[in-house]
Amino acid sequence: MRYLTAGESHGPAQTAIIEGLPANLLVQNEAINRELARRQLGYGRGGRMEIEKDQVEVLAGLRFGRTLGSPLALRVLNKDHENWLEKMAPWGQLPHSLDTVTQPRPGHADLSGALKYDVYDIRDILERASARETVTRVAVGAVAKELLKVFEIQVYSYVQAIGPVTAQLPVAASVVANYQAVETSPVRCPDPVVATQMMLVIDDAKAQGDSLGGVFTVVATGLPVGLGSHVQWDRKMDGRLAAALMSIQAIKGVEMGDGFAAAARPGSLVHDEIFYNSSTGYYRKTNHAGGIEGGITNGEAVVCRVAMKPIPTLYKPLNSVNMADHTAFAATVERSDTCAVPAAAIVGEAVVAWELALALREKFAGDSLDEMKANYRSYMERVAKR
Amino acid sequence: MRYLTAGESHGPAQTAIIEGLPANLLVQNEAINRELARRQLGYGRGGRMEIEKDQVEVLAGLRFGRTLGSPLALRVLNKDHENWLEKMAPWGQLPHSLDTVTQPRPGHADLSGALKYDVYDIRDILERASARETVTRVAVGAVAKELLKVFEIQVYSYVQAIGPVTAQLPVAASVVANYQAVETSPVRCPDPVVATQMMLVIDDAKAQGDSLGGVFTVVATGLPVGLGSHVQWDRKMDGRLAAALMSIQAIKGVEMGDGFAAAARPGSLVHDEIFYNSSTGYYRKTNHAGGIEGGITNGEAVVCRVAMKPIPTLYKPLNSVNMADHTAFAATVERSDTCAVPAAAIVGEAVVAWELALALREKFAGDSLDEMKANYRSYMERVAKR
Amino acid sequence: MRYLTAGESHGPAQTAIIEGLPANLLVQNEAINRELARRQLGYGRGGRMEIEKDQVEVLAGLRFGRTLGSPLALRVLNKDHENWLEKMAPWGQLPHSLDTVTQPRPGHADLSGALKYDVYDIRDILERASARETVTRVAVGAVAKELLKVFEIQVYSYVQAIGPVTAQLPVAASVVANYQAVETSPVRCPDPVVATQMMLVIDDAKAQGDSLGGVFTVVATGLPVGLGSHVQWDRKMDGRLAAALMSIQAIKGVEMGDGFAAAARPGSLVHDEIFYNSSTGYYRKTNHAGGIEGGITNGEAVVCRVAMKPIPTLYKPLNSVNMADHTAFAATVERSDTCAVPAAAIVGEAVVAWELALALREKFAGDSLDEMKANYRSYMERVAKR
Amino acid sequence: MRYLTAGESHGPAQTAIIEGLPANLLVQNEAINRELARRQLGYGRGGRMEIEKDQVEVLAGLRFGRTLGSPLALRVLNKDHENWLEKMAPWGQLPHSLDTVTQPRPGHADLSGALKYDVYDIRDILERASARETVTRVAVGAVAKELLKVFEIQVYSYVQAIGPVTAQLPVAASVVANYQAVETSPVRCPDPVVATQMMLVIDDAKAQGDSLGGVFTVVATGLPVGLGSHVQWDRKMDGRLAAALMSIQAIKGVEMGDGFAAAARPGSLVHDEIFYNSSTGYYRKTNHAGGIEGGITNGEAVVCRVAMKPIPTLYKPLNSVNMADHTAFAATVERSDTCAVPAAAIVGEAVVAWELALALREKFAGDSLDEMKANYRSYMERVAKR
Repeated sequence: MRYLTAGESHGPAQTAIIEGLPANLLVQNEAINRELARRQLGYGRGGRMEIEKDQVEVLAGLRFGRTLGSPLALRVLNKDHENWLEKMAPWGQLPHSLDTVTQPRPGHADLSGALKYDVYDIRDILERASARETVTRVAVGAVAKELLKVFEIQVYSYVQAIGPVTAQLPVAASVVANYQAVETSPVRCPDPVVATQMMLVIDDAKAQGDSLGGVFTVVATGLPVGLGSHVQWDRKMDGRLAAALMSIQAIKGVEMGDGFAAAARPGSLVHDEIFYNSSTGYYRKTNHAGGIEGGITNGEAVVCRVAMKPIPTLYKPLNSVNMADHTAFAATVERSDTCAVPAAAIVGEAVVAWELALALREKFAGDSLDEMKANYRSYMERVAKR
Repeated sequence: MRYLTAGESHGPAQTAIIEGLPANLLVQNEAINRELARRQLGYGRGGRMEIEKDQVEVLAGLRFGRTLGSPLALRVLNKDHENWLEKMAPWGQLPHSLDTVTQPRPGHADLSGALKYDVYDIRDILERASARETVTRVAVGAVAKELLKVFEIQVYSYVQAIGPVTAQLPVAASVVANYQAVETSPVRCPDPVVATQMMLVIDDAKAQGDSLGGVFTVVATGLPVGLGSHVQWDRKMDGRLAAALMSIQAIKGVEMGDGFAAAARPGSLVHDEIFYNSSTGYYRKTNHAGGIEGGITNGEAVVCRVAMKPIPTLYKPLNSVNMADHTAFAATVERSDTCAVPAAAIVGEAVVAWELALALREKFAGDSLDEMKANYRSYMERVAKR
Repeated sequence: MRYLTAGESHGPAQTAIIEGLPANLLVQNEAINRELARRQLGYGRGGRMEIEKDQVEVLAGLRFGRTLGSPLALRVLNKDHENWLEKMAPWGQLPHSLDTVTQPRPGHADLSGALKYDVYDIRDILERASARETVTRVAVGAVAKELLKVFEIQVYSYVQAIGPVTAQLPVAASVVANYQAVETSPVRCPDPVVATQMMLVIDDAKAQGDSLGGVFTVVATGLPVGLGSHVQWDRKMDGRLAAALMSIQAIKGVEMGDGFAAAARPGSLVHDEIFYNSSTGYYRKTNHAGGIEGGITNGEAVVCRVAMKPIPTLYKPLNSVNMADHTAFAATVERSDTCAVPAAAIVGEAVVAWELALALREKFAGDSLDEMKANYRSYMERVAKR
Repeated sequence: MRYLTAGESHGPAQTAIIEGLPANLLVQNEAINRELARRQLGYGRGGRMEIEKDQVEVLAGLRFGRTLGSPLALRVLNKDHENWLEKMAPWGQLPHSLDTVTQPRPGHADLSGALKYDVYDIRDILERASARETVTRVAVGAVAKELLKVFEIQVYSYVQAIGPVTAQLPVAASVVANYQAVETSPVRCPDPVVATQMMLVIDDAKAQGDSLGGVFTVVATGLPVGLGSHVQWDRKMDGRLAAALMSIQAIKGVEMGDGFAAAARPGSLVHDEIFYNSSTGYYRKTNHAGGIEGGITNGEAVVCRVAMKPIPTLYKPLNSVNMADHTAFAATVERSDTCAVPAAAIVGEAVVAWELALALREKFAGDSLDEMKANYRSYMERVAKR
């Protein structure tokens, strides 16, 4: 199973091709659009989210809402493109009066991208580096969630910190047990008191022309033991999840389970002891490991904590250098979100969903959903006997 | 460029095949063995490190110390294998009196691996899941370092925390400027006072039959701007580094640059402003980003902070369940290191070196070293003109 | 560089995403559409080619006709989809009156695909297995040709045999030197007398409700020495070309250079002797090898001969079995081309162009076209000195 | 599942790492060595085959002859290395008196490789390009065969033509039904009269200092319907087999089923009609397709015909040019086989076995053999009901 995405932020569309789904999987239009909508929510977003009410279009791979085993082509139009028809035209002459961007913004791909790809107009870089790209990752993740759902695997997210405000939250399993509190919070924080503080610091940052990052958690429940592998470094489940999460725009840190906190405690308090019960099999009473030992899921919830830096586009100027003439300038505002952590959490869910679905496909294969389910059941029965 | 490794901890040997190196690269036997030796050092290691004085053997790909462009085959014998000839024989009958391992240790791949691979004797899993496997990753990383060296790229590591003891260290560039202090410290910590405290907590943990984790930093300097890419999620340099680091045994957290700390500060204090100077080109005065923006190296040092959990094998027993009969037991000690953070830092260097060398090969290609160098120079000249 | 395609034959569209092109490559709309048109020509095609005047649409990756280094998304609408809106709807309920296909046609993916993917309606398979999919491969190949053109590499094709009629043609270099004769022939055969015979046998087959295959040749000129590699089996240029060509619908044989004929001659008559001339360097007087020795291009024209079986859809019925009830039936006609060899030759060009462009990217890399060109020149100068 | 090989012809050893086998597969030492021995047989081989009695050594991945799910490391020593200790030393100084090879042999990778990799001594290329490398491919294929055997899949080969002598053979199924005739023939030709003629032309060629190629067939029986896929070009079973076969040294042509002959016949005589029988399900009376339709196995025997050019090393000299000074010379003899077609057929078996085993792993996955077998059975039962 693999996917590729394409799309500039103000170009015609965001496109994705997913390959390797089993045939006969039900995929609901509403399920994808719901995820796209969740990505657009969140306190602290600027104006653009109003313009784009993202809707997915399927160009291939589905018939009457069921997969054919063939590649899925997904398309989400960039509604804002109509305002950029001339500046972002795929074909045709370069307009005479084109406003080129020659002022790289600190914290973005602008400078490195322009040097790497040898382009004069930084727009050639920033259009693809934009977080608008995550719309396809969320759509792909929504399809992955449809597959996971069949196996009763759920993926959740919530926000633990915005800037300096951090919630003291119970363990992940408890938070997702009361998920409504997360889904109804404008900052995806289940603690309503802390959520209010978070919104205040966002307002504050906005008033000062500043931006804020934060920390979110992605949780996956219902996983079978045995996804990922210890046998080769690039097959470890935690390594793959880390790659997927770190590759989201503005992410700078990823933890599995207790993460950095585990590094500070003695081994006797870090490892999850093993118990057995004849009805449910092996189980743990703690989940410090975040559901992965030796690069393999152990049947507990997978828990990833993720740090997002503040959005690098500020009203408050940052020093930079014009690439056209090497003069200093104060960096421009290309967009105006103050805080995108709640949205990033949704992207986090999507990429985790994809990696888990991929691992599930690798372990259970099957060209049709029934075949995959039979393989899954047969394995689960074998495990239950151990 | 790609590699695969093979090897059980007490089997005949650890083997790696590396493919895609340019021809005519000098690779020094001593350079690889030096890295293997660095991996074996570190305060807090148990007895096995004495047994194995690892030495690399090259079976293919080199002639008179120069690469042929063909795959490199590296082998490191497991000297301890001679004590395991019967138990770990590749061929032959299962011995009648074989001691099978049926008691999974919490925090290891034991339980998940035995269920996934459907093996009765957990030794079939733990032999490969063992950190002994990192000997090949270090050897592969040592070869990668030989390539990086040609381009004046250096990879360093140091330890910032062992268990509860954390050093307040200056920025990465300053630490590596005085690298001798790191290399001569038994815990790889440049602050000798803190290093002494670290050794004390290791002694303490050992006395209590406990184990300790910690935090180390990997730093790479001399990188060109433009490694990695923003154009597709799986090409982002930070995602790849995160995968490589998180895939090391016992690693539970990875940060790029300021990582989680960046999530707590306002944007105006997080992004690295851009400056220009006609002699050296674009540069930064800070490096909060850890050398990567938009998934692309920006020419500053790449800085990764990595959290290692305590070694999950303790003298202090942990509860577990015997898979043979589901009876509870107190988990056995398979090995006896108290703290492996200094060694893990060397493995961290190795995997970072590999990922950077890979990115360098992707960007500059070239089938011979001269071709690669010419491509590099031509790009650097183009960049210098911007 | 990689690509994925998606698309059912009568679904909304054919879509492709190409990743890894250098920035600043000019890609002409007309160039892609010209290739799409060439694919639709050819004596012996049925009615559908009239319906679809394929036009490419670019959804991402281009700005003013130049690549951005980001992924290209290409879309070609299936104009016939409007007649299939109900039967091939991606979403919505399965129509009550849907005509399901339960009769597998010999020679197609129908039976194997329906069993593999566990689908009842064979349309779920045949829509993707259809040669309509080659429209994206031709579009992708057209983009590859734009890249090759920069390096003065040209890819040609011509037809040598249709059914029992075989032209005695001069060596590939001579045929492409007079390429107009190929391009103006309705069967892409440069010998006008034989071309007329070919059309006659096509007419004849059509009259009898039968179909015909044939043999075409793909030729690439202007290649540098050194594409592909001998060092690992999956990097051999000939292996990759064979995979690409054999993966085209209905292809059953692939030869490099003299192919099977070389197997019948003594070595002294098969190998291309090596000569040198101070102005042009090393050269050959013959090209039995088809431009590849040891899996590496040798600077001579790459020549692949390809056998296409007759289209497996005949008016003349073939015995088969209804999957709904296991009753025998005479296989239905889903479409009605008599001979598609001239069109397949264009697809052959496309896939060869892609593989060569890929090999060129692997060897010369470069994120911008200028960087790639500089790397190319530097290598060619180094080669010229040997 | 994936593998890499390494090894120079006269270097210390040939090494391979295979990853992705299920745990608990029995692999017999004798089974691998038997295949290595089969590769060394064949009328028309020169002296080296005497020197090397190849024996596999397993360095990892097996315990008591059963796989652990971890990577297999295989090693075959180059016994001739002891005569090349100085010339092929991995480490150390370049000897003063080293005989460098500067005379490229037509038909080999010599010239292209030396230019591509920018090496002076052509030995740096020819050592890896040598057919000695196929020893690891045969070992890897032997392991693949052990897996296939569990599913009652057998892979065979036989020789149809040596130089100008071609046997008129019955269909593949008939030849392999009487396989003893093949295995006992020094040229792997089941027709003893033709075999004698083949040996005569080999003697003749040898007497004249010439070499001969030929045509062999690889047949796989017992395959389930549904390996490979039509959904993406690079997943087609025929494309993958073609790549694997064409990547063998000296192979210039590959056919599936009737191949080029199919191109000359009308569709009504080419496609394999479909029949049904309640005890065995769908079946065919003919196998023109060679067991693959639409890129998917159809349950019939897979049949590949393969053309090998004559070995390019002749006693009879070929013109070439010394790279040291551009003077013409008559190409040297590096080795002296006259005909290697029977041996190449064994290599053909090996690469076909690998590709089929890979496809089987992709379809049925499973981390243990029991899991894989259960998945296989469940699919076969589902297919049987259709």
